[in-house]
Amino acid sequence: MNTMYQRRRADLVTWMARNSISVVVLEDTEGRREKAVRYFSGHPGDALLIITITGHAVLCPWDENLAERMADVDVVIPYSEYGRHPVTAAAGIIEKIGVPANSRIEIPAHTPYPLFLQYAGTLMDHVVLCRETGGVFAEISRMRSIKDEYEITATGAACALSDTITGLLEKHIGSGKIKTEIDAALFIERTIREAGGDGIGFETLAAGSSRSYAIHPVPAYTHAKIGTDGLSIIDFGVMIDGYTSDTTLTIATGKLDPAQEKLITLVEKAYAAALALYKPGVPTREAALAADGVFKKAKKSMPHALGHGIGLEPHEGPGIRNREDNEWIFEKGMVVTLEPGLYDPVYGGCRLENDILITEDGHRVLTKSRIIRL
Amino acid sequence: MNTMYQRRRADLVTWMARNSISVVVLEDTEGRREKAVRYFSGHPGDALLIITITGHAVLCPWDENLAERMADVDVVIPYSEYGRHPVTAAAGIIEKIGVPANSRIEIPAHTPYPLFLQYAGTLMDHVVLCRETGGVFAEISRMRSIKDEYEITATGAACALSDTITGLLEKHIGSGKIKTEIDAALFIERTIREAGGDGIGFETLAAGSSRSYAIHPVPAYTHAKIGTDGLSIIDFGVMIDGYTSDTTLTIATGKLDPAQEKLITLVEKAYAAALALYKPGVPTREAALAADGVFKKAKKSMPHALGHGIGLEPHEGPGIRNREDNEWIFEKGMVVTLEPGLYDPVYGGCRLENDILITEDGHRVLTKSRIIRL
Repeated sequence: MNTMYQRRRADLVTWMARNSISVVVLEDTEGRREKAVRYFSGHPGDALLIITITGHAVLCPWDENLAERMADVDVVIPYSEYGRHPVTAAAGIIEKIGVPANSRIEIPAHTPYPLFLQYAGTLMDHVVLCRETGGVFAEISRMRSIKDEYEITATGAACALSDTITGLLEKHIGSGKIKTEIDAALFIERTIREAGGDGIGFETLAAGSSRSYAIHPVPAYTHAKIGTDGLSIIDFGVMIDGYTSDTTLTIATGKLDPAQEKLITLVEKAYAAALALYKPGVPTREAALAADGVFKKAKKSMPHALGHGIGLEPHEGPGIRNREDNEWIFEKGMVVTLEPGLYDPVYGGCRLENDILITEDGHRVLTKSRIIRL
Repeated sequence: MNTMYQRRRADLVTWMARNSISVVVLEDTEGRREKAVRYFSGHPGDALLIITITGHAVLCPWDENLAERMADVDVVIPYSEYGRHPVTAAAGIIEKIGVPANSRIEIPAHTPYPLFLQYAGTLMDHVVLCRETGGVFAEISRMRSIKDEYEITATGAACALSDTITGLLEKHIGSGKIKTEIDAALFIERTIREAGGDGIGFETLAAGSSRSYAIHPVPAYTHAKIGTDGLSIIDFGVMIDGYTSDTTLTIATGKLDPAQEKLITLVEKAYAAALALYKPGVPTREAALAADGVFKKAKKSMPHALGHGIGLEPHEGPGIRNREDNEWIFEKGMVVTLEPGLYDPVYGGCRLENDILITEDGHRVLTKSRIIRL
C-alpha cells in the first residue's frame, strides 16, 4: 500500500513524464523555505529533496536523526556528505543515480540568480530549468492548493481549536482575565501546545486599540492593554500536524466613533459580497474586486490582498487578490481565507477573517471568527 | 545632524561611487526577508527600498501608516501605486528619479532567477546586476557584520535580559515551577515582552531529555517535561530594538550515563579551544576547525556550524564554519555566537552557546549561558 507521500510523488511523476522532466530538485533552507519538501517526504525541512522520473526520492537532510524518524523516502544521505552545499549535493546525487546526459532538471523556482549560475555551470551535461510559471513549481503550487483528505482533516482540527480559542478570548477579555496583548498572544500559544498542536502557524498579531491602525503591528504584541475603547485586532493561526488555520477577530469596545462604525459596516459588507463568490469556477480576482468595489464606493481602499490559501504555509496558493496577473480560479478542495480589512491611522483598524473550504457546489466556512462588541 | 540611517546610507553610497553603482534596490518580502531594509531606513520590513548614488532614499512600503511612524527616508511611495510588484515599483521609481540610461543597477542577491529575468527585461536601458559575492550585497553583509555603537548597545541589552532569563530558568526548573517545555518557552516570551523587548528573536527550542537528540526539535516545544533525567536543551533569543541575542542552555539532570558525561566534556573542551581563536585577524574557519578537531579525536562530529553573527537577524555575517569557501575573518565590532554541540539519538544532545563581541585585542563574552547540573 502506498503512503500519502508516495501517492503525492506519484502524481508529481505523472506530470514530470508528461512534461519531460527527469529530475526535480526541492530545497528548504533558511531564507528559502519550501514546504513542498515536507509535502512530498514528511520531513519537516532544512533539507534537499530529489525526485526522479523513475519515482526515486532521495533526501539530503541537515538533521539526520530527525529524518530517520520523519522522512518517508527511498534514501537518506546526510547533507554533510556534500559539504552542506545544495549544488554539490544535487550534482552528487544526480551522478550517483546515473541520470542520463541531456536530461531536463528543474531546480527550485526560488533559486537566486547567482545560485542558478552555479547549478547551470555544475550540471553542464544537463538542461537546467528554473521557472516561476509553467514549470514544476507552479504545478506543485497547484497540487498543494487542492487539499487531500488528510489535509482537510488536519486543517479542520486546526480550525476547530481556533474557534475554541476565539470563544475563550472573547470570554477572558470580557472578564478581564486577559488584560494585555501579551496575555492574549501567550494564551493562544499555550492553549494550542497543551492541546498537542504544533503551536501557532505564524506570529500572533495582537493589537490593542492604540496599535490596530497597522496591518501587521510592530512588535506583533506588547504589554499594551487589549480590549480597551476602540478597535482591537487579534490575528492568529493554530497549527496541527503541520497545517495552519488563519483567522482574525476584531473587538470593538465602548461607544465607537461614527468613523469606526463605518469601518465595521464596510468590512462586513465587503466580506458578504466576496463570500458569495467563493465557489468553484469563479476567478479569485472577481471576489477581490467585489470587496474592492464596496470599499471604493465609500472612498476607502484595502492595503492588502483579500485572501490566500492556507495549508503547510500560512500563505500559499491560491492567491485571492485584485492584481491583473492573478489567474487563480476557485476549485473544490481549496482551503482559503477571506479577510477584508480597513485601517485608519486615527480610528484604528478592523479586519474580519475566516477560513473557507471550497466545496462541490459552493463553500463551507470552517471557522467562526467575527467582529465582537464588548 | 545626520541620523544613524543617513550615516549608514552615506557609507553605502561611498562604496557605490567607488564601484560605479548608480542604484541599489533592496527588497523585504515574505519568503525573501532582507533586514538591510530596516538597517538603512528604520522601516521594519515588507517594503522595497531604493538608494541612489546621489544619496536619495525612496521607500515603497506595504504598510504606509507604519512607514510614516518608522521610516527615516527621503520619500515614501505606497507599494499599491505600483500594483505591489517589485519590478514595476523599481522601474517606476528609477524613471521618476531620472536615472540616466546605461546606469549600473544592483538588485537583491536573493532575487530568484525568474524575477531576475523580469528585472533585466524591464530595465533594458540599464545594466542590471545581481551578485552574491563581489557586489553590493556582500558589502552590506560586511558592513552589517561590524556593529556600530547603537547596535552594540541594543545587543548588550538583549544579552543582559537573556542572562536574567537563564538564571530564572535554572531557578524555576530546579524548583519545579517550570515543568514543561511549554512552560519554559512561554516564560521566556512573557519575560521579554513584559520587559518591553520586541519578543523572542527566533522560535524558542525547548527540548526535554526525550527530544534533545534533534538539533532543532519539531515541534520546537511541546507539553513534554523538561529537566527530567538526562540532557535537556533550551535555545532562545531575546530581541530588543530589533537586535537579538542567541544562547543555549543545556540542563543535565540526575545520574548521567558515561556517554552523556562524554558529550558534555567534549562540548566544553571544543568551546574552550574555539574561544581562544575568537580574536581580530583570525579566519573564522580556524575556530570551526579547532572545535572539529576536538570532536574528531573522539570520533564524533558536529552536524552544524560552530557559530554565526547575530544582529537584526538571528543568523547573519560572519559565518563561523568549516566549509572551505568560508573566507570570513574576525574583526573588531563583530557580535557572534559560539555554539558547539553534539547529538546522539539515544543519549540526547548537548549544546553550549554564548554571544561574543570581538574587541580590539580579543573578545568579550556577552552572555553567561552554560551547562547546568540539576
